[in-house]
Amino acid sequence: MRGRCGADLSHHDARFDLSALAGRPLGSPETMTNRFEASGYDRRKFLASTAALGTGALGLVDRDVLAADPPNSSQVVTGKNAQLVVHTSTIPQLETPPALLDSQITPLDVLFVRNNQPLANVATLKPFPSKGWKISLTGRVDKPRSLNAERLAGMEQVEHEMVLQCCGNGRSLFASSVKAKGTQWTRGGMGNIRVSGVRLSELVRKLGVRIGRKARFLTVEGKDIPLPDKEDFEHSLPLDEAMEHSLLATRINGQPIPAVHGGPVRLMTPGYYGTMHVKWVSRLRFEDDETDNYNHIPRYRVPRERLQPGKPIKYTFSNSKACWRMKTKCVVLSPQPDAAVRAGKPLEVRGVAFNDGSTRIDSVQLSTDGGQTWSRVRLNIPSGPFAWYRWSATVTLPAGKRQLWARTVDALGRTQPLDGSIHWNPSGYEWNGVEKIAVTAS
Amino acid sequence: MRGRCGADLSHHDARFDLSALAGRPLGSPETMTNRFEASGYDRRKFLASTAALGTGALGLVDRDVLAADPPNSSQVVTGKNAQLVVHTSTIPQLETPPALLDSQITPLDVLFVRNNQPLANVATLKPFPSKGWKISLTGRVDKPRSLNAERLAGMEQVEHEMVLQCCGNGRSLFASSVKAKGTQWTRGGMGNIRVSGVRLSELVRKLGVRIGRKARFLTVEGKDIPLPDKEDFEHSLPLDEAMEHSLLATRINGQPIPAVHGGPVRLMTPGYYGTMHVKWVSRLRFEDDETDNYNHIPRYRVPRERLQPGKPIKYTFSNSKACWRMKTKCVVLSPQPDAAVRAGKPLEVRGVAFNDGSTRIDSVQLSTDGGQTWSRVRLNIPSGPFAWYRWSATVTLPAGKRQLWARTVDALGRTQPLDGSIHWNPSGYEWNGVEKIAVTAS
Repeated sequence: MRGRCGADLSHHDARFDLSALAGRPLGSPETMTNRFEASGYDRRKFLASTAALGTGALGLVDRDVLAADPPNSSQVVTGKNAQLVVHTSTIPQLETPPALLDSQITPLDVLFVRNNQPLANVATLKPFPSKGWKISLTGRVDKPRSLNAERLAGMEQVEHEMVLQCCGNGRSLFASSVKAKGTQWTRGGMGNIRVSGVRLSELVRKLGVRIGRKARFLTVEGKDIPLPDKEDFEHSLPLDEAMEHSLLATRINGQPIPAVHGGPVRLMTPGYYGTMHVKWVSRLRFEDDETDNYNHIPRYRVPRERLQPGKPIKYTFSNSKACWRMKTKCVVLSPQPDAAVRAGKPLEVRGVAFNDGSTRIDSVQLSTDGGQTWSRVRLNIPSGPFAWYRWSATVTLPAGKRQLWARTVDALGRTQPLDGSIHWNPSGYEWNGVEKIAVTAS
Repeated sequence: MRGRCGADLSHHDARFDLSALAGRPLGSPETMTNRFEASGYDRRKFLASTAALGTGALGLVDRDVLAADPPNSSQVVTGKNAQLVVHTSTIPQLETPPALLDSQITPLDVLFVRNNQPLANVATLKPFPSKGWKISLTGRVDKPRSLNAERLAGMEQVEHEMVLQCCGNGRSLFASSVKAKGTQWTRGGMGNIRVSGVRLSELVRKLGVRIGRKARFLTVEGKDIPLPDKEDFEHSLPLDEAMEHSLLATRINGQPIPAVHGGPVRLMTPGYYGTMHVKWVSRLRFEDDETDNYNHIPRYRVPRERLQPGKPIKYTFSNSKACWRMKTKCVVLSPQPDAAVRAGKPLEVRGVAFNDGSTRIDSVQLSTDGGQTWSRVRLNIPSGPFAWYRWSATVTLPAGKRQLWARTVDALGRTQPLDGSIHWNPSGYEWNGVEKIAVTAS
């Protein structure tokens, strides 16, 4: 089958996505390292554990998984718009068609989903009850603490408007050089949302936690369940940045965080890629070192130095970095790739642009002549540094096959490479190439 | 007085530049840290040591230092073109006017000079004799080695065409926000030269040196003499990059390296800023850690995070980085700032562009309308990755005061910030703002 955004999804069966539970989920980069090659996979053990859990325990919507038609996104996650692209369904990966992203705030029902591990009753936009939800703080602290999540509501709340983007967003575009492993996201693994909750630094202050001087990382765990024979999902963040920006988020767009998006409490760090916003937070560990958990290395990392497309790499802490701060980029939302447009008539080109929030977007530039000349587009300045900038430009194209190229430049002088595959990496993370949209004007 | 490139040089007397020897040389950033505040400066001790050395020992050209006219550059360094800007003379700092840089290879007689410490008989373009010159290799090696520099000639030679640029080049342009401390270089603290010698990795192989696995840095010392009460000049380089790219260079533009430029042996790492190419090499130390020598920290460092212009910072290894790899930039060589040009007639704009050599320059773009639109210029592809790209464009300007803006974009998506002062740092290192040349067309 071919996905709605043109990605080739023929490599898996979305009806009942066993492969996503089978120890080699789509999108996992095991093949680029030998680290786990020897561990093998005990299929019988997995099937037994799956049977014991039952489909309900895996978070499946109650439906006939043997039905002939693949489920639509509203069947995969209750409450979602039915128009999302279903990449996987058991552990849901849903992509938003660009046309549904053409607003300043992305509504929850169209927001993309990329979960990594199963958890019961999360395939819904309904909130997860916070009653009885405990979060522990451990590691280099004067003494371990346990927090009842309900207490967060009584603390000072802050809100950020921020881009939420899967670091695999745009992965399919790496295929211009060598196809990268994993779910073939096109442009819709992103959204722009309002996130509110309690600053990590405020929580630490309120609880009177004294963090040891040697602690340099915050490692975050969630309550979701590890895949068979896999390490439980977790990520580390640089502690100084976490103390500056991270929130124990409890609301998105003013509502309690839906179960599928990591409620009741998600650790969110504006400017960071989505995977780092650990869902269903259960534990915060203050530690000297970055975790060597499989989900943090080799997964969700990019090489520090340029890699020849197709070349394998064995990641170490020194030759790679975690997918933390988002690269500067823009996405064209309209027209769509391969659209038919009117020749000789004004055509509005629209999109969004963002970076890691550390500096403002200076300009988005558009070229209709293959990069010979570029013109600055109209840019809407958003309310905060981590939000996306909507932009638009009006062009008039002569008849024929044309290319619309768009490039963001931020105030630090960071822009998008003309050929995004220069940042090729085996798992296709952090695509930020110049947008190149082919259209036919007639 | 006002320098030839328009920099305000009134803060020092170029006739006999005592200030450059006085423990607080122009360009040193002591005031941004308290580290050496307490050490004080014993002027009597300095004067005594200066008297003992004699002016000859300080590398002065034999001339009447009490003459009324400041020395020209050919008097400061024998063999140099007389048209260079003399920033300091006792320990010479000479800047090349842009008009003399408009060639692919910069001749030695116009190449800029920025020395840090005195050494006898170096104020000349003549070579330093290599006979009897010893270089030791110490630190994390199986056993220390001593090399007679003459042996280098018998080893495999390689040549790089490369940009040599002082990391203070463009410092005066930071004054658009807050003037940075140090010699007010405009655009001519750079050149493009052919450098040849023996790869560090080849030398290590030839000598059979076994480097310890924990060594991560190469620290390089020269034979020049420390300033009174100051630590001897040295720099550390990341060992992996040094092993890949560094040369024990013995020739520039096919000639033995002139004494003033660090001969007979200079450790040169293409793509790095000039200060890192340590002159008059005497010792190579393979070490676990980056040196904490005053010349390496706090001197010659930039903050990792954005700093408010004018704000002091106390550098640490974690909040700053050494001035290693050069930032992507271009320089307009013609027309000159504030030039009068013909309105309505074709005007050729010419310049050079370069980066750290890790990827190619993708384009240089020119804007004559304040950044609303940009056009790609003609780019000459050089023979190697570390060389500069000459470029030119023809524009026609209407009458009036106009701005020519030029910006480089490399294949990694690195470009120049529209306002270069976003990278402000107390010592004004690594300027790479968009070039903005004001001209009057009539």
